[in-house]
Amino acid sequence: MAYQNIETLSWIGDQHGWLRMIDQTLLPAELCEIDCRHTETVWEAIKKLRVRGAPAIGIAAAYGVCIGLQTLPSNVDLVTFQTRLNEVVDYLASSRPTAVNLFWALNRMKAKAESLYDLKDVAEINEDLFSEAKAIHEEDRRICRSIGKFGQELLRDGDTFLTHCNAGGLATADYGTALAVFFAATEMGKTVKVYADETRPLLQGSRLTAWELMQRGIDVTLICDSMAAMVMKQGKINGVVVGADRIAANGDTANKIGTYSVAISAKTHKIPFYVAAPVSTFDLTLTDGNGIPIEERDSEEICCGFGKRTAPQGVHVYNPAFDVTPAEFITGIITEHGVISPVNRENIAKIVGA
Amino acid sequence: MAYQNIETLSWIGDQHGWLRMIDQTLLPAELCEIDCRHTETVWEAIKKLRVRGAPAIGIAAAYGVCIGLQTLPSNVDLVTFQTRLNEVVDYLASSRPTAVNLFWALNRMKAKAESLYDLKDVAEINEDLFSEAKAIHEEDRRICRSIGKFGQELLRDGDTFLTHCNAGGLATADYGTALAVFFAATEMGKTVKVYADETRPLLQGSRLTAWELMQRGIDVTLICDSMAAMVMKQGKINGVVVGADRIAANGDTANKIGTYSVAISAKTHKIPFYVAAPVSTFDLTLTDGNGIPIEERDSEEICCGFGKRTAPQGVHVYNPAFDVTPAEFITGIITEHGVISPVNRENIAKIVGA
Repeated sequence: MAYQNIETLSWIGDQHGWLRMIDQTLLPAELCEIDCRHTETVWEAIKKLRVRGAPAIGIAAAYGVCIGLQTLPSNVDLVTFQTRLNEVVDYLASSRPTAVNLFWALNRMKAKAESLYDLKDVAEINEDLFSEAKAIHEEDRRICRSIGKFGQELLRDGDTFLTHCNAGGLATADYGTALAVFFAATEMGKTVKVYADETRPLLQGSRLTAWELMQRGIDVTLICDSMAAMVMKQGKINGVVVGADRIAANGDTANKIGTYSVAISAKTHKIPFYVAAPVSTFDLTLTDGNGIPIEERDSEEICCGFGKRTAPQGVHVYNPAFDVTPAEFITGIITEHGVISPVNRENIAKIVGA
Repeated sequence: MAYQNIETLSWIGDQHGWLRMIDQTLLPAELCEIDCRHTETVWEAIKKLRVRGAPAIGIAAAYGVCIGLQTLPSNVDLVTFQTRLNEVVDYLASSRPTAVNLFWALNRMKAKAESLYDLKDVAEINEDLFSEAKAIHEEDRRICRSIGKFGQELLRDGDTFLTHCNAGGLATADYGTALAVFFAATEMGKTVKVYADETRPLLQGSRLTAWELMQRGIDVTLICDSMAAMVMKQGKINGVVVGADRIAANGDTANKIGTYSVAISAKTHKIPFYVAAPVSTFDLTLTDGNGIPIEERDSEEICCGFGKRTAPQGVHVYNPAFDVTPAEFITGIITEHGVISPVNRENIAKIVGA
């Protein structure tokens, strides 16, 4: 199995086709693809993290809108079409509350449709929405390459970086955001080593990041999340790069739970801490990170994560899926338009407003 | 099953009896006891963490010496006795390199024997060694109560504390070191809530600490290690208390991997961070934490911890069992002789030398 031939997400057939995705919950033991022919399947795949990673969720949701509109008869009237579109968008938006790319992609699909209501018939609007979903998918490929290009400049030959969770090819159309930095550095001929946090409770680091990096021949060492501070103290880490699920106007960044802990350790050890994310991850309507909703997930993820009960029955559990790293802990944010550093409102407005 | 009737470690019968222990690797799913009638069984139990926690390891090792001497015929000569004693001590010392209580207990047994070689015959020395092991066991009970008494003064009614790993009744003769603080506070009529880090890779927090606290009716919330920083930032935590495996003369403290990360987060959020440990945990031969040997454990603990493979085959893994928290991160060390604070060489010498 050659990783480079595997697409995290792909659309099969024409506009009447379906979405195929790698079921990431089964990796690395099994490389299985599932076919989504109903919005419910897309919703469930996002909810259950079969597809995860902010950009990949956005792409899946955009295609999910097209799939949801397939249930309409071809001669449907505009009002029914609009009602169904709103219904599908609202439904998909309910799958995961933190990833802003989900809402960004859904809003982009809705805005596209709204711009066409006075100009085209329903069949044509449907076609244009399908093109819009494909455009979101294609743009993400280019965005990831661009993030890699800017990000690799921050790595020196021989550096060892640490990453948390998975912001790789599996989390995007291809190539990733945080991992794009390593892939691009390697393509530039630099030698890079990576420490990957396993990322409890769902182990995206051990299951996905370690797998992706090994597939691409990058030297990766797996550690538990609680070991990051120690390897930093040992002088093994030259920098940190992680992805993001939502970034406020001041640079406060929501990302996978545990990111904040890594950022604190990096600051304590004077190690640069970078976030890699497309500009679609910014939510400029939020003044700071306090406004970012934090998804809480099922306690079973912590108590029974691997098919074996590892905590007493009935224990209280707190299971936030994300945390917010304040901007002052972030050395730079790597976007497809360049690196924002220092991270502040003015520099963000300059890059994201561009 | 009433927890208060369960002894982590108990000696069955007279001097010719055996050591019974709870197999902590099976908790909380099963409460099983195993009988150790051979030093090899004791060694394996320490190595495999069936018994763990620095004080409990010390007690098990002391009894392990008695078990090792049972193989000698009753009419053995002194030279053969000495050879066997040294052999048993060296063998048990090879089970786990970081826990200083292991060496402390073994050295105490050896010193006891050496003090008697000119005074008593082998049968009498054997009897006295058995009494010494029982004394180590009994003293630990009193030590834990005393740590609880001093430690509970640091908790206010209504406080919420965080702990990492398990420094409870299971890790000691009874009552614990870090958890003794909560038990004693509760007995004083204070209401205390606890956040327990699950403590990857072996989940002593979710398997043992959550179980012990629930058994004693203390409100406990389980989190992943990576969530500690977030709950601190949310203002939920008034203080941290953890155990220790070895403390250098300047206060640098080796404890379960992840402790250092918690200490960094506590300092960042200006939350007091306490270590609770008997004075036998201090190793005054070490100037600072750099001299503490750090045990590295099998990669399978991280890759297959739950009976299911969760990382790619062949991935590099770094699995240190402990980390060292520098003294400047520690607000106070709670011992059976009182609280050492601020933590520095002079204050430690005063309490530990006493």
